[in-house]
Amino acid sequence: MLEQVHRECAGFKEGNVATYIPELAKANPDWFGICLVTANGSVYEVGDSNQSFTIQSISKPFVYGLALEDNSRTEVLKKVGVEPTGDVFNSISLEPNTGRPRNPMINAGAIATAGMITGRSPQTRLKRILDTFGLYAGRELSLDQSVYRSESDTGHRNRAIGHMLRNFDILTTDPMPVAELYFQQCSISVTCRDLGIMAATLANRGINPVTGKQAIRGEYVESVLSVMETCGMYDYAGEWIYKVGMPAKSGVAGGVIAVLPGQLGIGVFSPPLDTHGNSVRGVRVCEELSRSLDLHLLNRPGDGRLIVRHRFTGADFNSSRVRTTEENRVLREAGKRIHIWQLQGNLMFSTTEVAIRDVAETMPNAEYLILDFKRVLLLNECACGLFYQLLLDATAQGKTLLFIQTKNVPLLRRFMRAKLREQFETTFRVFEHIDRALEWCENQLLETALPLRSNDDTVELKEFPVLADFTAAESATLTGLLKRNIYKSGDTIINAGDPAGELFLLRRGQVSVLLPQSSGENSRLATFSAGMTFGEMALIDGAPRSAMIVADADVECDLLTLEDFHRLDQTHLAIKIKLLRNLCFDLSNKLRKANRELSVLG
Amino acid sequence: MLEQVHRECAGFKEGNVATYIPELAKANPDWFGICLVTANGSVYEVGDSNQSFTIQSISKPFVYGLALEDNSRTEVLKKVGVEPTGDVFNSISLEPNTGRPRNPMINAGAIATAGMITGRSPQTRLKRILDTFGLYAGRELSLDQSVYRSESDTGHRNRAIGHMLRNFDILTTDPMPVAELYFQQCSISVTCRDLGIMAATLANRGINPVTGKQAIRGEYVESVLSVMETCGMYDYAGEWIYKVGMPAKSGVAGGVIAVLPGQLGIGVFSPPLDTHGNSVRGVRVCEELSRSLDLHLLNRPGDGRLIVRHRFTGADFNSSRVRTTEENRVLREAGKRIHIWQLQGNLMFSTTEVAIRDVAETMPNAEYLILDFKRVLLLNECACGLFYQLLLDATAQGKTLLFIQTKNVPLLRRFMRAKLREQFETTFRVFEHIDRALEWCENQLLETALPLRSNDDTVELKEFPVLADFTAAESATLTGLLKRNIYKSGDTIINAGDPAGELFLLRRGQVSVLLPQSSGENSRLATFSAGMTFGEMALIDGAPRSAMIVADADVECDLLTLEDFHRLDQTHLAIKIKLLRNLCFDLSNKLRKANRELSVLG
Repeated sequence: MLEQVHRECAGFKEGNVATYIPELAKANPDWFGICLVTANGSVYEVGDSNQSFTIQSISKPFVYGLALEDNSRTEVLKKVGVEPTGDVFNSISLEPNTGRPRNPMINAGAIATAGMITGRSPQTRLKRILDTFGLYAGRELSLDQSVYRSESDTGHRNRAIGHMLRNFDILTTDPMPVAELYFQQCSISVTCRDLGIMAATLANRGINPVTGKQAIRGEYVESVLSVMETCGMYDYAGEWIYKVGMPAKSGVAGGVIAVLPGQLGIGVFSPPLDTHGNSVRGVRVCEELSRSLDLHLLNRPGDGRLIVRHRFTGADFNSSRVRTTEENRVLREAGKRIHIWQLQGNLMFSTTEVAIRDVAETMPNAEYLILDFKRVLLLNECACGLFYQLLLDATAQGKTLLFIQTKNVPLLRRFMRAKLREQFETTFRVFEHIDRALEWCENQLLETALPLRSNDDTVELKEFPVLADFTAAESATLTGLLKRNIYKSGDTIINAGDPAGELFLLRRGQVSVLLPQSSGENSRLATFSAGMTFGEMALIDGAPRSAMIVADADVECDLLTLEDFHRLDQTHLAIKIKLLRNLCFDLSNKLRKANRELSVLG
Repeated sequence: MLEQVHRECAGFKEGNVATYIPELAKANPDWFGICLVTANGSVYEVGDSNQSFTIQSISKPFVYGLALEDNSRTEVLKKVGVEPTGDVFNSISLEPNTGRPRNPMINAGAIATAGMITGRSPQTRLKRILDTFGLYAGRELSLDQSVYRSESDTGHRNRAIGHMLRNFDILTTDPMPVAELYFQQCSISVTCRDLGIMAATLANRGINPVTGKQAIRGEYVESVLSVMETCGMYDYAGEWIYKVGMPAKSGVAGGVIAVLPGQLGIGVFSPPLDTHGNSVRGVRVCEELSRSLDLHLLNRPGDGRLIVRHRFTGADFNSSRVRTTEENRVLREAGKRIHIWQLQGNLMFSTTEVAIRDVAETMPNAEYLILDFKRVLLLNECACGLFYQLLLDATAQGKTLLFIQTKNVPLLRRFMRAKLREQFETTFRVFEHIDRALEWCENQLLETALPLRSNDDTVELKEFPVLADFTAAESATLTGLLKRNIYKSGDTIINAGDPAGELFLLRRGQVSVLLPQSSGENSRLATFSAGMTFGEMALIDGAPRSAMIVADADVECDLLTLEDFHRLDQTHLAIKIKLLRNLCFDLSNKLRKANRELSVLG
């Protein structure tokens, strides 16, 4: 697509290379490069995208961003306005009484902005600008000394502006070093590829999407883009927004950048300029790309419906804690009082509203409300406020609201701590994983519905479902085959890859089935408690163990070896049949549960 | 949050109610309403949100939209420009030579726009405007006759503008009826709630989010919002974008609307005006909401990473076609050549690029590439172009690209048909469901790896895995217990809820397990082919059937009843043990598959 646009626009031969300084006049009018960089860091380039040229006025928004960081928005606004002038590119446009330049994209405003860059010496200030631009571009940048000398030799008009600004106390120091700094910022040598990445850094809230480094604090990006939006293309702003719909800035050497926030940045380089002072092909390329890629800023579909990835209750989907038949029976009904929202994407007002509204409407019918932030990419302060209000409402109604995996969204924790103060620890309940939160809620429900069984109790063999319907004699026979093993809390009972060996009857304590993740952490597949059986699948199909099993507490197990299990065929047919039937029953329960959960996630 | 903003802003008592016509001067300066409407149709309102007032200049962008629909963008641009004037609200601002009004938000431009509304009579034209506004607001609207008469009685300046426009041939008919239409459009009576919904309709690409009805074609919304963005707040545009960052429009009766594309619309009503002619509290509310809800248009996070919901291969996740052990063995390896991307959300350039890039990078290692559009909300023409190019690349490389559930995105089909022409039917492969596409790909891979078994063959009992290791005598005994059932293609073999009855040995044909959906369609849980066993779970736990089973072809089954199965305990222990062991083996395979798939989706 870029190649096609390049081919088409190469045909436009209108416009003239800038000649106000001899160095610029040397540019080849046929140089033509395009570079598009996505907010995810994909770089697409075509043509003369590595030809060097000077950044010129495209430096203005980036220096404006640095001035905002150095001085705060309030201070900067005192000295430079944000209204478009409707005037041509080299107009002076100071406000009549205050002398405040109308905006930072005209030369007067840019010189005032350069005067706000902090640093002890002229060298320090220049270095700060070069370093900042380098972060935007993702490589070290330097001055084109011959262009700089040429700019400085002929920059009488800009020196006049400097003195005028000093006269109005917009500049408060000697204006001459400020003018030099301005000549220098304009003489920074870049390529079209650099411009594409710099634009994409603005699109990516100040973080260079190729290097991952921050070039400007995210909070100031909207201000930089705002002045580009209204004042970036001189007196062509209205038509630009109408046709292209992206904040942009052009430079007299033939560069143009355009930024589509959250999506991409575009850099174009072609020296011939139109009467507005904008690159003819640069404007044309942006128009073409906006049209063919549908990039208009004001043509954005909604994405609120996407924010809830999964929505289910504790009746449809359970924790990996394996439950007894009785417990499962309770949870199939009582689990309806647990509601889970798995959120995804960016939590801003409009998306958060969709989720919160559903949670609030569900609240009367729920006891436990679980919000899973695992797949949330970003959350802003407004969303924090909405979740805080929701938490207050839930607490007031005696409901329990749980927050899952808030590591991705540290702002939420800070916000809640600041608002809740001494109530923070007791009110803001966070679990690292949805599974643990579900288990906790299930336990609360089960506690009220069933007699409590202590974790320390030893379960008699006759209570094991796998031995259901055994006669006393059969029990005694089987017991004779079992071997007692004892494990300390934390011991590994089975390793993934171990050969199939034994069936484990868990007499005391609890064990978890864990699967090592590429992240180094283990994901929990199941937790068994006393009275349950594990390791049966390897017993049946003889396949090596597929996961590791670890003792969560001090554990006692009775083990039936594979050999003894097989030998029952010859010695105790009735026992074997009952064992197999009970294992079948157990497997079919697990399969029903897995299928139910698959249909929830599918 | 709205209540708090309302409370805070109610304190601002500055500004004066418009008095240029007596009717407006009657407004109570304390009237104050706020209404926020999301693009999903949630309406939040506070204060005097149901107080009627006249829409005044807020009618301009909506009539501009109607003029675009009536005349096309090109024709409208010939008569009204799109550049901000930087002038005050009642300036005339015609271009010196052409007489073209600078933009449609100033009175001259709005009158020129009103002159472009089509309709045979003045009544028809007024009715079309009222009907359109009614679609935006979601209710029938009418004129405030006394305001209209007052406007008409005092509208000399606007009549002068009308004649001036006639002089320049911007208006080509008698300007007096046009001026009357303009007075009428300004005198339409609305509430703050109406304004909120009208704004949200623009945010929702022209579709009223409350009624679901289309008020303006989506393609023109960006143009309406563009002129609001640059010219909507008169000479306050730069500061407005800097501080508020939403396209907006104000009216002299005290109304203000602001639009955040894709997200929400805001309506505010408070009569006292500032020197720019904008509602004092209206401006303040928009600033407050933009700040506290973080609504600035240029501060948008990216969402490219969200576009791929799930990404897996045919080795991790299989179709619901139940496979033999041998087939599963082949698919665990060969399935890696099937790659699936489940897409979600809005497919525009920046999101589509993320998906396409991954698909393109995967292509060398894949044979089948499946793109699932089930959860795609919207797809634009640019995305179609990218998918088309991908399809060409895949075809050129001898890969098979499959598109799933493209019903949601009819544009894709139309685009492909137009581009592919006679190759359309053979190249653009669509499946209605991912499961069927996976099955088809698996079949392709299995055909090349394993000897083909005809669907019409009858499978001998000794080949059934459930009878594995049976001696000839045991086989004969079991065969004696079986009852032959025959079903026609389409017959229901088992209904959901049926009591547990028999184990089915599928001798010939194939059957599918179906679960009725709320949509009325059946979702397929599994398909069994000859040589397989079904119905075993109900046999083991005695629970009623959980799904229906239907014959996909003419089917022959051998049935083992629950009674006979139980009776084997007394009569043929060895047979029972082998059956149970084989069932256990089958169940544990199914459980392993389900757990693997859960971990893919989890």
